[in-house]
This record gives sequence, C-alpha cells and structure tokens, in this order.
Amino acid sequence: MNILVSWDMLDANDVELIRDRTGAAVLQAESKEQLGELISQADVIFGFVHPSLLARAERCHWLQIPYAGVERVVSVPWGNPEMVLTNGSGIFGPNIAEHVMGMILAFNRGLHVARDYQHSRTWQWAKPYSFRELTESCVGILGFGDIGRHVAKRLAGFDCQVIAFRTVPRGDEGYASEVYALSELDQHLPRLDYLVCALPHTPKTAGFLHKERLRRLPKHAVVINVGRGSLIPEQDLVEVLKAGELAGAGLDVLPQEPLPAESELWSLPNVIITPHNSGLTPFFKARALEIFLENWASFVETGRPVRNVVEREKGY
Amino acid sequence: MNILVSWDMLDANDVELIRDRTGAAVLQAESKEQLGELISQADVIFGFVHPSLLARAERCHWLQIPYAGVERVVSVPWGNPEMVLTNGSGIFGPNIAEHVMGMILAFNRGLHVARDYQHSRTWQWAKPYSFRELTESCVGILGFGDIGRHVAKRLAGFDCQVIAFRTVPRGDEGYASEVYALSELDQHLPRLDYLVCALPHTPKTAGFLHKERLRRLPKHAVVINVGRGSLIPEQDLVEVLKAGELAGAGLDVLPQEPLPAESELWSLPNVIITPHNSGLTPFFKARALEIFLENWASFVETGRPVRNVVEREKGY
Repeated sequence: MNILVSWDMLDANDVELIRDRTGAAVLQAESKEQLGELISQADVIFGFVHPSLLARAERCHWLQIPYAGVERVVSVPWGNPEMVLTNGSGIFGPNIAEHVMGMILAFNRGLHVARDYQHSRTWQWAKPYSFRELTESCVGILGFGDIGRHVAKRLAGFDCQVIAFRTVPRGDEGYASEVYALSELDQHLPRLDYLVCALPHTPKTAGFLHKERLRRLPKHAVVINVGRGSLIPEQDLVEVLKAGELAGAGLDVLPQEPLPAESELWSLPNVIITPHNSGLTPFFKARALEIFLENWASFVETGRPVRNVVEREKGY
Repeated sequence: MNILVSWDMLDANDVELIRDRTGAAVLQAESKEQLGELISQADVIFGFVHPSLLARAERCHWLQIPYAGVERVVSVPWGNPEMVLTNGSGIFGPNIAEHVMGMILAFNRGLHVARDYQHSRTWQWAKPYSFRELTESCVGILGFGDIGRHVAKRLAGFDCQVIAFRTVPRGDEGYASEVYALSELDQHLPRLDYLVCALPHTPKTAGFLHKERLRRLPKHAVVINVGRGSLIPEQDLVEVLKAGELAGAGLDVLPQEPLPAESELWSLPNVIITPHNSGLTPFFKARALEIFLENWASFVETGRPVRNVVEREKGY
C-alpha cells in the first residue's frame, strides 16, 4: 500500500508518525515533476495536490485533503472515478468561529475604530463609536456545518438567540434554538441583528445573498462572511452599505481574491476585511493528522474512510 | 421623601417613570449652583454628583451611582456619615465582557494587524500574523466580581480552562474550574496563557501587577486590563513588552487617563488600546434604572437598599 504524502507543513517526524501508524510505504516527491510521477503509484493521497494532477491518480482509492473547500477538486477529471474524497471539515471550526466572534465583537466595541485612534495617539472616548451588544440579539447562521456549529457553541455564553439555516436540517443543531431550511431564510431575515455566513461555493450558493436579500435585513444588522466570497455579489454589498441599508460587514472571503486594490470595500468605514486567513490555526497540522489517521483506520477495515466524505455531485 | 435625580442621560420619560414607581418628590437641578442647594434637601440621590458636594448631603440616607468605580466617592467627607452607597455593579458585566473577548480574539486572529493592511489595501495572507487559539488554553481572571463572572460565562464556549482569582472566594464562581485567593496568584501565573484583570482601584491593588509578576507569566501570554489602570505600572508593562517577555496587552484602562500622547504604549505593535470605554453600552440606562428601582423597593421596606452596597472602608 502506497500513501503519497504531499504537504509542506509536515516535517520528518510527522511523516515518521504516518509510517508508524499506517505500516504503509510513504511516497514523498522532491519536485513537481516527481509528484506527477508518484501520483500514479499512490493508493492513498494525503495533502495538497494540484487538481490537474488528479487525472493521473488512476489507482488512488482515497484522497484526504486538509482544507475544506472542494470546488476545484470536484470539478476536474479523476484518474479513478470511484476515488473517495475526504476534506478537512472539523479542523477549522474552532478558529474560524473565533474569527467570526472577533469580527462581531470588533463591531460591537468599535475596536477597528479604536485601532485608528491608537495610531494617531488620540484618546477618543465616546464618539464616533456606535456600541452594540449581543445581549438579547438574534444571530442567524447561514450554513450550519462544522463552522456554524462552532460559532453557535461560542455564542451560547452571550445571552443571544441563535437561528440556524441549512440546506437540510439534520437534528444535530443543538446550539441553535431554531433551525430552518435555506428556502425559509427570506421570511426570517428581518429578525436578524447579525447574519453569519458559512456556506460552501456551489452553483446554488453563488450570488445567493444578493441585494434584495441584504435589504430584508434590518438596517442595524451586521453580516459576517467566512464561507465563500461568491455568496455575496460585491457591488450589491457596496451598494447597500453605502446606502445605510446595512450597518456593517466583516469579510474574510471575497468574490475575487486577492481583493483588488481598487475595490471600494477596502475603504468603507463599516467594513472589516481579513485576507481569507480565518482558517489558519496553530492546530492545523495536529487536527488534519488526527482526521487522516481516524479515516485510515476505517479505510483499512472497510476499504472506505468515514469522516468528512465529500459528495462529489453536491460539491461539499 | 425627596429623590434628587442627577443624570444627563435620563429624559423626561425616565424621570416620570421614577416618580410613578416611587411616589416620591423628584428633585432636578437646572444648574450646578442649584444642584449644590438641592443636594441638602435630598433623602435619596440617584446619579452623578461631584464628590465635593457630598459634604452637603446631610439628610441623604442612600446614594445610588450608576457606575462601578467608587474610589473618589468613598474618599471624601459625607454630610451623613451613615449614608449607604450603592454602585452600578451588574450594569457593565455583559458589555465589558464583550470588550475583553473582543480584545482576546483580536490578538488571536490578528484583527488589529489586518486593520492596518486594510487601510493600505493590501491582501496580506499569512505573515506577519501570529495566530493563536483559545482552545486548550488557560485563562486567569484576576478579580472575579460581576465583570469577571461575565467574562468566564462567555469563555465557556471556547474549550478553554478558566481560573478565578479574587480577594475572598465566595463559592459563586461557577464558570471557573478553579478559584484561588489573590495571595495564591504568583504560583499560578506560569500556567496562564491569558490574564484578564478586572480589579477595582484600592490601596492594595495599586501597582499589584508589577514587572516581577508580569515576568512570571509565560512569554506567549496576553494581558487584558479592564479594571483600573493603577493595577499595572506603565513603565513595567512597556519594559516587559519591549523585552518580549509578554506577547501582548489589551488596555482599556491606564494609570494616567487620557493616556498622554507621548506614551510609548500607543506605538507598541503588540498593544491594543481603547479609551476606557468598555463600560459604554446601549443598555446602560435601562440596567441602571432596574438596579435603582430594585434598591428602592428594599429601601422603602427596610430603610436600606440591598443590591451593590459598597463597603466604604474596603473601597468596593
């Protein structure tokens, strides 16, 4: 059995751990060219490989990627069409949830505004902050997978109400007090003080949160997006923010990344932008290894990994 | 019975509410001079009055202030030495806890750094952030009154350990997994990844968190102070931060306020400064009125308010 390990972040000790725990032959490429050759010998692949190489993975039964978004991997030809794809869902929930909470609380406490005053050494006490509080507020979470659940768990201590919206409610939405299908979102938008978006990119989610939907939110609402940038058309967002129809937006993902320097979003006073780095965490490697080894155990036993299996046709 | 109401934030409706609910005569001053006269007629005072005026409050049985820090009020002569002082403890817990969590998460996710890149329209993905996560970390809370309890409650969803330090443990520290007396702090400092300070100013707390104590924290620790600025000597903090003996400081309170423009703290890259505004919240008035009216009920029944009674000699 050959496992192709292709991830810069793993050091010699990590590879040794994989060899020890799996008993398999570990293949590692020293160049892009070599990766192209080794991929055809791999029974299992763990790590980052360019999607274009997957056509050559003819004997690969299982590909474990350490990240969550699979839109590029599912849309290319696979050398073995029966290959099982598993992703890194579960790695990023805690840190992306901290990112979301950090953005919400930055808006609530004016921390982005205070940062600017700090640079000018100005003790600016009350104005021009517009203080907010989560207490008694209503937070909608759009997309209630691993990230959404972790956000809801962290909101539990803030005395607010959490409402989950997901494609198909599954009954595991314990941290939310109400759960609705995506198709029911529109009628609930006027209730939301915050809307946290954690949807993957699919043909159905692209452009989903357009200006008509944004306008159904109360004017004081704040939108946070940590899923995929394609969800919210950039010009629609600029338009409602500039018109005062929305109080703020915290954006870790954008329709075009890197966000072009000429985008108006950079300079809107009620926008907080981070460069799609909510997924970075010191726990990245440890959690990815844990998922891989857990999946390895079932792969050996049943021929299939069980955790985070992606449905190729759905795209997540 | 005369209630002197002295608080700009209260409008005519609020005063009407107080009149209705108490049945008392409500006195309101239209000038500083008039306030000086009315104060001698007050049986009860609710609001902000300059401490120097308290010498004239000879018939006042009870003073309800809407804020928490009482160091200036307890240190001046009172016209009636038997006057009971109650403060606004309980008003600020939720919002100051949000402020604390916002500062912690800003450090964890590099939001203060991202803000600077946003101004320069730069999509700066990984470096120079040093991402952190609360998961599996240990958070010490120094001063476990209303604020400390609210911080601990909000930390409950973040999979970290919370340790409370307070003058006298009282058994109501449910959100903390361990509780120690202040005198035991030194031995636990090396365990802490974060130290949240919410102590009042008293002769015992002034200068308490000096550089020898700061150096007992791990180098990667972050200190947040939302209590009183006198707790941490400014030069000690600058020294340990510049020496890399502490990873960061989030400061809403400073030894000298406003913080002078020439202070080095403004420009240290691992310092987040807010201008002592963590106490501001849209719920300020509603919560203060609630405390006043609750205290009024017991004042009428027993002659004494019961909630938030300050022990003058202790200073909190």
